[in-house]
Amino acid sequence: MTDLDEAIAAVRADVAALHAELVRYGLVVWTGGNVSGRVRVGEDRSADLFVIKPSGVSYDDLAPENMILCDLDGTVVPGTPGSDRSPSSDTAAHAYVYRNMPDVGGVVHTHSPYAVAWAARGEEIPCVITGMADEFGGPIPVGPFAIIGDDSIGRGIVETLIGHRSRAVLMQNHGPFTIGVSAKDAVKAAVMCEDAARTVHFARQGGELIPIPQEKIDALYNRYQNVYGQSTDARR
Amino acid sequence: MTDLDEAIAAVRADVAALHAELVRYGLVVWTGGNVSGRVRVGEDRSADLFVIKPSGVSYDDLAPENMILCDLDGTVVPGTPGSDRSPSSDTAAHAYVYRNMPDVGGVVHTHSPYAVAWAARGEEIPCVITGMADEFGGPIPVGPFAIIGDDSIGRGIVETLIGHRSRAVLMQNHGPFTIGVSAKDAVKAAVMCEDAARTVHFARQGGELIPIPQEKIDALYNRYQNVYGQSTDARR
Amino acid sequence: MTDLDEAIAAVRADVAALHAELVRYGLVVWTGGNVSGRVRVGEDRSADLFVIKPSGVSYDDLAPENMILCDLDGTVVPGTPGSDRSPSSDTAAHAYVYRNMPDVGGVVHTHSPYAVAWAARGEEIPCVITGMADEFGGPIPVGPFAIIGDDSIGRGIVETLIGHRSRAVLMQNHGPFTIGVSAKDAVKAAVMCEDAARTVHFARQGGELIPIPQEKIDALYNRYQNVYGQSTDARR
Amino acid sequence: MTDLDEAIAAVRADVAALHAELVRYGLVVWTGGNVSGRVRVGEDRSADLFVIKPSGVSYDDLAPENMILCDLDGTVVPGTPGSDRSPSSDTAAHAYVYRNMPDVGGVVHTHSPYAVAWAARGEEIPCVITGMADEFGGPIPVGPFAIIGDDSIGRGIVETLIGHRSRAVLMQNHGPFTIGVSAKDAVKAAVMCEDAARTVHFARQGGELIPIPQEKIDALYNRYQNVYGQSTDARR
Repeated sequence: MTDLDEAIAAVRADVAALHAELVRYGLVVWTGGNVSGRVRVGEDRSADLFVIKPSGVSYDDLAPENMILCDLDGTVVPGTPGSDRSPSSDTAAHAYVYRNMPDVGGVVHTHSPYAVAWAARGEEIPCVITGMADEFGGPIPVGPFAIIGDDSIGRGIVETLIGHRSRAVLMQNHGPFTIGVSAKDAVKAAVMCEDAARTVHFARQGGELIPIPQEKIDALYNRYQNVYGQSTDARR
Repeated sequence: MTDLDEAIAAVRADVAALHAELVRYGLVVWTGGNVSGRVRVGEDRSADLFVIKPSGVSYDDLAPENMILCDLDGTVVPGTPGSDRSPSSDTAAHAYVYRNMPDVGGVVHTHSPYAVAWAARGEEIPCVITGMADEFGGPIPVGPFAIIGDDSIGRGIVETLIGHRSRAVLMQNHGPFTIGVSAKDAVKAAVMCEDAARTVHFARQGGELIPIPQEKIDALYNRYQNVYGQSTDARR
Repeated sequence: MTDLDEAIAAVRADVAALHAELVRYGLVVWTGGNVSGRVRVGEDRSADLFVIKPSGVSYDDLAPENMILCDLDGTVVPGTPGSDRSPSSDTAAHAYVYRNMPDVGGVVHTHSPYAVAWAARGEEIPCVITGMADEFGGPIPVGPFAIIGDDSIGRGIVETLIGHRSRAVLMQNHGPFTIGVSAKDAVKAAVMCEDAARTVHFARQGGELIPIPQEKIDALYNRYQNVYGQSTDARR
Repeated sequence: MTDLDEAIAAVRADVAALHAELVRYGLVVWTGGNVSGRVRVGEDRSADLFVIKPSGVSYDDLAPENMILCDLDGTVVPGTPGSDRSPSSDTAAHAYVYRNMPDVGGVVHTHSPYAVAWAARGEEIPCVITGMADEFGGPIPVGPFAIIGDDSIGRGIVETLIGHRSRAVLMQNHGPFTIGVSAKDAVKAAVMCEDAARTVHFARQGGELIPIPQEKIDALYNRYQNVYGQSTDARR
């Protein structure tokens, strides 16, 4: 087994297993939603690929060997396990993100209900809870309306998230895309995005929200990114 | 085993197993809700029957052999497994749909809470999220108020859905009925209908919704019906 | 084993198992909620007792042998299994119902959240969905404010439900009590009460509800009470 | 094994197991939330320590031996199991509570969504349901806005809860902290706090709430604290 083979096998296992978290947290129904993870080997990044879920397949049937390996154009790598199936219909958007955001190691897309509700109004989620300040460092932004068929979804994600603290974007009328340093980190962002969308939805139903001062948001975000968790696994 | 016996056995297994999806997605409580699947054999459609859940039986006790085989008048086929029990009290509505919609292979009825909420207001669910455009091609319509006792429920379903893209109808003050090319496809429509009902409910609680232009809805619907999923199992 | 012993053993098993349904449908948290079942033997009803959950015991630890046997005054029958523990703190209310409603075979109390929400406003749940018409034959009524310490809770339940079609009452600021011909039937009523409370809550959040004409409610109720389910087990 | 060793082992097992209750009741997502339990041995309280969850570790991976033992300054006791990992980032707040509230045996912190919603508005939960009167003896209060970095969170908890019947405080824009005579009792308070937050949220969405007279709240609280449950395990 080469280094690349090993890296691919590890990401296949990871991506297959992480889909269970989307189910556990109620972020997906039926076959909706998808997780991908980047595979990059070599100092020159000679190999730069990603692994993604097949299209329209039940969450009960996901296994490492039916995950699909793609290059950064979103083309299935022929002759690899799972390559006889179609990859997720959102593959082009994932590929666009990997091509244009070299530090991204994982991408997740869901139609989680509270996040989609904000997206259907084209309204960002205000940062009124310390958990959001920790995780996203401010509001969760809205991206443009874009539909499948060209690069417009990927471009909308990238343009919204580059230079933004948030690892989550709510694509208008569509739903959240999240990114992370790994597939696991992107899944965490998807879970925390829905949690924030839900909690702030509840909060606002009851009346006026108390804003958090910007310098407190900054302090919380900086601490959480640097201190939280075990030093060996932070956000990985 | 004849072709017909085999086909019946397959649909019995399918229909029994698919009820678990209603439970998984929270579409039913207690013994409510029902799934049926069509059995059709022969080029001349000499055999045209359907399999449905017994009335008032716990979801824990459903098995292929206690599903009930009916003809298209909704009469239990005597001497077949399960024929000593009463079929679902919604059997007449299912039968009416099969008689009048020859392409329908499955029917589902639930009282899933968010869909029933729209039905209690007699209000269609507007198509403001791309997931609805994919799945239903527009709003989910409302059917007439009708109660058990004659053909009025079945007629209301058929009159609403014929010529409509949506595979789901919200019967006023009652709840959703969904159809599909198979029992599984109708169950998927029931799951996606509740998901849409819930998400758009949340969305509207927070303020004004952004409409999706009709030509974008059309493009999403056409792509999803033709491209999504694996070519071998799309919507089956 | 006498007939009475057998009857007690059967109700103990039933009552212990039925508590799992309260958990399954999210009607209870921690040790809250309780189910009881009547034990009546002999033509002269010489034995008339009931079995109820112990107070403050985890749902994970309920078993037939730790259910508690009480007489209709709510006094624990000494020397029987479980008699070393305290019965549910709602035992007096259950006993009052059994003493005053001879046809009642089971009683359930929960703090299920949507039903309690209507109770906190002292507002009956209007019958705007056919599932409520089937099950309750009209609105779910509110009972008086009453607190533990005397017969006032039991009296409030009985005065509200005698002569009413509904098997559920929302005790003001407190929560639902339900009755049935058996413990299982009372649990079903508790499940359907919360389902109705939740669905009508959602419905009204979105705007005006369409009433169901009284004669349609009557027709639905009469059909459901007489026809639904298998003839051998209807509501038992 | 000394008495202290035994006491530590018992609290480790307790605290590890109790985290599962946070998951069961939907109070936490991902690695959020934490439970601690006090260990106190000797008449002179010569040993006064507490056991808490490690930071950022999955709920699937919690076991007695990776819980972390701290002194009342929040410093990890070196050389004990788990001492190679970082304790929960809320450890300082837990320690402050133990130092300043000698009767507290357990502390819990979550970001449970309905409780956080009230916290984001800085609004106490009014006591309009008898279950809240039983458990909290009145409204659930709000504590000040405070962020991690010094004693301000711990001080806010203690100043709000000393002299208050409630075992739960909603820290503004942050979330609930609960205390109890044991870790289990604090977890119960966290579960009941979210239940109250949720139910009163639903109740108020539908209109005006009926207040409970203060003397009735007092009567319910006094009864529940003294009578409810089995005499051997009440609130322990």
